Amino acid sequence: MSRKTKVFLTLLLVAALFCVFIALRIAVFKPGSTVKPVKIAAGEYDPAIWGKYYPLEYKSYQKNLEMVPSPTGYGDSRKIQHSIKEPEILTNFKGMAFSKDYAEDRGHPYAIQDLKETKRISPNSPGACMTCKTANLIDIYKEMGWTYAKTPLTQLFPRMNHPVVCANCHDPETMNLRVINPAFIEAMQKKGIDVKKAPRDRMRSYVCGQCHVEYYFEPGTSRVIFPWDKGLLPEQMYAYYSEKPGGFTEDWLHPDSRAKMLKAQHPDFETWSNGTHGKAGVSCADCHMPFMRENGQKYTSHWVTSPMKHVKASCTKCHVEGEAWLLETVKTTQNSVWQLQRIAGTVVARAHEAIGRAEAAAKVNSAEIDKAREFVRKAQWFWDIVAAENSMGFHNPTQILNTLGQSIDLAHQAISTANRAANTSN
Amino acid sequence: MSRKTKVFLTLLLVAALFCVFIALRIAVFKPGSTVKPVKIAAGEYDPAIWGKYYPLEYKSYQKNLEMVPSPTGYGDSRKIQHSIKEPEILTNFKGMAFSKDYAEDRGHPYAIQDLKETKRISPNSPGACMTCKTANLIDIYKEMGWTYAKTPLTQLFPRMNHPVVCANCHDPETMNLRVINPAFIEAMQKKGIDVKKAPRDRMRSYVCGQCHVEYYFEPGTSRVIFPWDKGLLPEQMYAYYSEKPGGFTEDWLHPDSRAKMLKAQHPDFETWSNGTHGKAGVSCADCHMPFMRENGQKYTSHWVTSPMKHVKASCTKCHVEGEAWLLETVKTTQNSVWQLQRIAGTVVARAHEAIGRAEAAAKVNSAEIDKAREFVRKAQWFWDIVAAENSMGFHNPTQILNTLGQSIDLAHQAISTANRAANTSN
Repeated sequence: MSRKTKVFLTLLLVAALFCVFIALRIAVFKPGSTVKPVKIAAGEYDPAIWGKYYPLEYKSYQKNLEMVPSPTGYGDSRKIQHSIKEPEILTNFKGMAFSKDYAEDRGHPYAIQDLKETKRISPNSPGACMTCKTANLIDIYKEMGWTYAKTPLTQLFPRMNHPVVCANCHDPETMNLRVINPAFIEAMQKKGIDVKKAPRDRMRSYVCGQCHVEYYFEPGTSRVIFPWDKGLLPEQMYAYYSEKPGGFTEDWLHPDSRAKMLKAQHPDFETWSNGTHGKAGVSCADCHMPFMRENGQKYTSHWVTSPMKHVKASCTKCHVEGEAWLLETVKTTQNSVWQLQRIAGTVVARAHEAIGRAEAAAKVNSAEIDKAREFVRKAQWFWDIVAAENSMGFHNPTQILNTLGQSIDLAHQAISTANRAANTSN
Repeated sequence: MSRKTKVFLTLLLVAALFCVFIALRIAVFKPGSTVKPVKIAAGEYDPAIWGKYYPLEYKSYQKNLEMVPSPTGYGDSRKIQHSIKEPEILTNFKGMAFSKDYAEDRGHPYAIQDLKETKRISPNSPGACMTCKTANLIDIYKEMGWTYAKTPLTQLFPRMNHPVVCANCHDPETMNLRVINPAFIEAMQKKGIDVKKAPRDRMRSYVCGQCHVEYYFEPGTSRVIFPWDKGLLPEQMYAYYSEKPGGFTEDWLHPDSRAKMLKAQHPDFETWSNGTHGKAGVSCADCHMPFMRENGQKYTSHWVTSPMKHVKASCTKCHVEGEAWLLETVKTTQNSVWQLQRIAGTVVARAHEAIGRAEAAAKVNSAEIDKAREFVRKAQWFWDIVAAENSMGFHNPTQILNTLGQSIDLAHQAISTANRAANTSN
């Protein structure tokens, strides 16, 4: 054999080994990106059917049925009343449904069941309440447009077969991410963003943001509206509500303070968007739905839960400090937020009582009482926008702690203003 | 020429080119680690002498003479009175030196000059005041031990020839980092840490931490002591002071509230050590004294200033988001802290006034007044430990915002307790 031939054969052998290696790698690891999307019929909302073609995604989605607490001690997927640990809730939401029933949220598969079972709904509840609870919204909205929102909720119950499932976020034909909540699409349009043309990295937050937001029901129509015209910060949303949009002035009148109150919803998207992760382009899914592997197969986890349950998959892609360190850091932040949240909530409760007492006094300065009411309305908004949020401050610790600090100040001002109004030092 | 020879010669040529490249690289870039330390005489404190051998370090040290504001708008190296932007300072420090003169700090080279010029010192000021102002501490402490601390400051002035210079942090013979403040060495000893055996990465914080800390002067001896026995958190240091260590109960008695007050010093080290950077092992020097290059020569910047003046050198080694983004993020945090700092400081000032008014009332519950005094003492501590810190919250935003939130709550409680004590709603 000539020298040239030897060299040629050696090279050929190396090339061959390389091909075998690549082939084996593909065979064993099957990267997710090579999975060809299977077309699923539009209108198919049963996750079990989707799961036939996407077994790992489905298996992880099924974990949303589990009911367990978060390892940090904050956040739970068991139905536990918040008022057990925060009795001030019973005072602050007095006169409205959240004082009757305000439990930790269970996972997406329970959305319809929990909506039907909660004491917060009544025969008068509008259809708008089901906006974020079911994939059937797609057909209902297609057929009825926004009129579904003022249709009695109970009338829509028979049409709700599936809770929050694959179809809420995925186009069944292409598997592309999509948003189905018209309120989100409209709110983003107002901000000049066409959600239908959004790139995938944005969609990985928009699909969550379509529901994990602050909203209100427009008086008369019950249309779902996001109060984002002035911006997504707590004070900007408060300023929006101060303009009484479409005649909307309050969610309810507090029976003690007679203050016109707002109920904050879960502003996870707004809080995240102004935080470090949001600003750095880290999407909701990056942390809450990280890439996982099973038997070498890569997939996106559809167990939508606290990243603290899988710190390695969620955090260590960027943060190198180690799992225990990261968990401890999150705990420290959350403990800090919890402490101020309790102070704020408790002082707000005392403010409602102080205003009520002041009003009952013989001589009372009603202009001052009105000022006290404005203080407690704002104080409670600043407390509630944090308390109703699902991260115990983690989505934006700086903003949230600042918001709570302001809440504490405003609530105390409500008390002292009420005391001055009745000339008492109670 | 045979084939073998050709191959050999080619390899030789490649090796030769590589050697030339390496030689050129060393010649042009001269990495800092190859600089051989020059022995400087012990007792030589003139930075100009040291600068002959370390010209780049000295040139950067000379920049400490510049007097410019920080790009974030917080922190300044010009002598500007804090009370211009925060008039509440005049009330909160009433009756003590900080109400007379409390200016932004200038750089290390001004340490002695500023000590001599400040209205805070008097003929009665103890020698302890110069602990962190001069390298001459080395000889003074060697000769006098802790007795220097109660020697009149003015008596020590003639021995202070050089402010904070190279020798404060470097051994002149080895250039190794060292700590000269005995108070730091003792405080660390109590924590089980032998500073003399500390590794270099720790020393890169200890040299700063020897002075940028909370401390008090022991009654009788004026010995400098760090209140760290219970930990470095604001509430832990407050708990330490509550035990009246060595008879120490207060820095001064507030003339309005008659509350026994504490004056916080610049707890930069404590705040950083519990923050993300501190916990992750990022040293003071990593951000405040980053590595720089001039004409290819690498050196450590000795311009000890806000990292925001050189974001690229300080931050982008770890953070990839770009300079503008990083600066904006820091500004957002600092704005948030500033807002709560102003609220806290203002409510504390009102609390002193409210207690003063309550005490002057005809009928007053003195037990309640005492409670109000304890509230304002603690509220002011929590405000001051932030306001006196040099990072406008950046060293640990979560902890600092929590601390301010607590301060706001405590200050309001001081007011309402005082009002109750005098049965007034003022």
